[in-house]
Amino acid sequence: MTNKKTSGQGAVTRRRMLALSAAGAGAGLAAPAVAQSTQPTIEWKMVTSWPKDLPGPGITAQRIADQIALMSSGRLRIRLFAAGELVPPLEVFDAVSSGTAQMGHSASFFWQGKIPASVFFTAVPFGLLPLEHITWVEQGGGQALWDELYAPFGVRPLMAGNTGVQMGGWFKKELTGLDDLKGLKIRMPGLGGEVMRRLGATPVSLPPGELFGALQSGLIDATEFLGPWSDTAMGFHKVAKFYYAPGFHEPNGTGEALFNTVAFEGLPDDLKAIVRDVCRAENARSLAESEWMNAGQLAALQQDHGVQIRIFPKDVLDALRSTSEDVVASVAQLDPLSARVVESFQQARARLAPWSRLSTRLYLDARDQ
Amino acid sequence: MTNKKTSGQGAVTRRRMLALSAAGAGAGLAAPAVAQSTQPTIEWKMVTSWPKDLPGPGITAQRIADQIALMSSGRLRIRLFAAGELVPPLEVFDAVSSGTAQMGHSASFFWQGKIPASVFFTAVPFGLLPLEHITWVEQGGGQALWDELYAPFGVRPLMAGNTGVQMGGWFKKELTGLDDLKGLKIRMPGLGGEVMRRLGATPVSLPPGELFGALQSGLIDATEFLGPWSDTAMGFHKVAKFYYAPGFHEPNGTGEALFNTVAFEGLPDDLKAIVRDVCRAENARSLAESEWMNAGQLAALQQDHGVQIRIFPKDVLDALRSTSEDVVASVAQLDPLSARVVESFQQARARLAPWSRLSTRLYLDARDQ
Repeated sequence: MTNKKTSGQGAVTRRRMLALSAAGAGAGLAAPAVAQSTQPTIEWKMVTSWPKDLPGPGITAQRIADQIALMSSGRLRIRLFAAGELVPPLEVFDAVSSGTAQMGHSASFFWQGKIPASVFFTAVPFGLLPLEHITWVEQGGGQALWDELYAPFGVRPLMAGNTGVQMGGWFKKELTGLDDLKGLKIRMPGLGGEVMRRLGATPVSLPPGELFGALQSGLIDATEFLGPWSDTAMGFHKVAKFYYAPGFHEPNGTGEALFNTVAFEGLPDDLKAIVRDVCRAENARSLAESEWMNAGQLAALQQDHGVQIRIFPKDVLDALRSTSEDVVASVAQLDPLSARVVESFQQARARLAPWSRLSTRLYLDARDQ
Repeated sequence: MTNKKTSGQGAVTRRRMLALSAAGAGAGLAAPAVAQSTQPTIEWKMVTSWPKDLPGPGITAQRIADQIALMSSGRLRIRLFAAGELVPPLEVFDAVSSGTAQMGHSASFFWQGKIPASVFFTAVPFGLLPLEHITWVEQGGGQALWDELYAPFGVRPLMAGNTGVQMGGWFKKELTGLDDLKGLKIRMPGLGGEVMRRLGATPVSLPPGELFGALQSGLIDATEFLGPWSDTAMGFHKVAKFYYAPGFHEPNGTGEALFNTVAFEGLPDDLKAIVRDVCRAENARSLAESEWMNAGQLAALQQDHGVQIRIFPKDVLDALRSTSEDVVASVAQLDPLSARVVESFQQARARLAPWSRLSTRLYLDARDQ
């Protein structure tokens, strides 16, 4: 019963939370490599940037906690806190760094203000597709650079979930050309926002929970978020009818698991392997889930809600592409480590793009005439 | 030391193999849910259809065994047998069904003669791309049908690795049009071979180990295999210079883990979860590895080995597409379960294709002009 509460989502008393906190604080250091029967149960807290069970990343975060508990026979139990329950959504990184929580689930581009190159580990305008991104991080040197970026903060990152290729966003008015970007108030985080700014738009920074109201009230004219599945849950189709593609600014949507380094290093080898593998498996699982739900919801938005799918006009796409290259290159000017991240990313794209063209793109051209 | 030998790849004596065999046979049934220190070590045999450490599937099979040992703290040890070491490459399914081995790693289309619809779980001509395929199996009802297909044989399947989008194959002479398919002796397994047969070619059935010699001697005029990485290891570029795309016949390359049902059901819940998760993680990991290596090897084949990349002529692609639809539909005529597999597959493709077009294809069009 106690165990159920620990890993469940029910309300807990303040006393219980303090007990959890105490257990969690010590657990990171206590991890003798002895037999299961005598090993202490390790209890971790996971803080997230997502509303509870948000389609996509919210579901992913809970599933990671559940899988780790199952595969470890309950030796590692992780209690999930939705955005704001323990810390505000954009303070997840700091909470993991300080040890307030042993683990977090978020997206790396939220830390752009503190660590500019972190944005490369979520999505880059005209950058890598999900499978290409996973390939860069796993095979092309991305993980080592990501580790290096976060090491000074006592934090370790892993890819843990993926919401797939994003849409370009919801617009209240149709875009007829580049001039329509002038003065457009649009919510677009990461490097995409800077691209929009350079093209005359006014990027507005807002947390997910405030987007619907801002779009409805006219505080913003347009907003991007994720894809049809998550976006429908946010209700954007009720106040904007033009849904643009492609998602030039976020062709990938990597969920980020963050670990307090001391806590992670304190795990025995089998639990370390389980944590890593659960995160890796979630990349495949959540991508599949996002694809299935996005595909179904795309049809529903058009058929049931009168949403109009639009492709960005050619002059807009061309301007977005060339400006994106400038913005990416400008990150390399900031500091030597940022320059190495940009260089690694660009080398991976140069290597992978011809293969994606010959395999995926040529195949889709032939299949879906 | 003994443990190392059990999970390692070194030569073992016949006595050691017999000892392993005896341990493995009983292990499937003995799985008390007690603490680690008193749990018996379960030893399994995994038979595979691959040469030892074959780039792609051979590496995947070994990594699955290693990961399971690591995550289970050695409670489940799996000894891998390469093609022919314990049973011939195409007898993996029977060996798992009979309990000669508790586990196998292969590809489902090898069982086409016994179970016609099994081919849908590897690749279908003009069917699903890797991420779409994973989506169908995980989200669209594919896994339940796959389970149902194998249940009469006492075998359970899981996706376990993926070699990505395949190439269309190696041709000794350039294809100028549909007429060049007439009389062409080509190795192409699965439904692709039947498509080729209906267009006048002569599909030849050969195991991987005999392909190079057959292409060199002129016994065959063309062969497909996997992608640039694995194909280079096979040496095809030394005897054929035209490398065709797209891989219309195998847009996906799912590796198949097979489990003897009694052995799998005998595992405690945490080991079951570990086995499932390792297979799922390997889908993401091997796809990334294949993409990275294929991309690098594609460049090397062109720059260092004078290989000519060719796109199938339009009349050939059009004929391949319409004939592929006929061949797929004909499988549905065989029996009610095959019909349900075909229907499920086609429904998934109809749902996913518009989303792939709006996300992946439109994005690649915009990025890689």
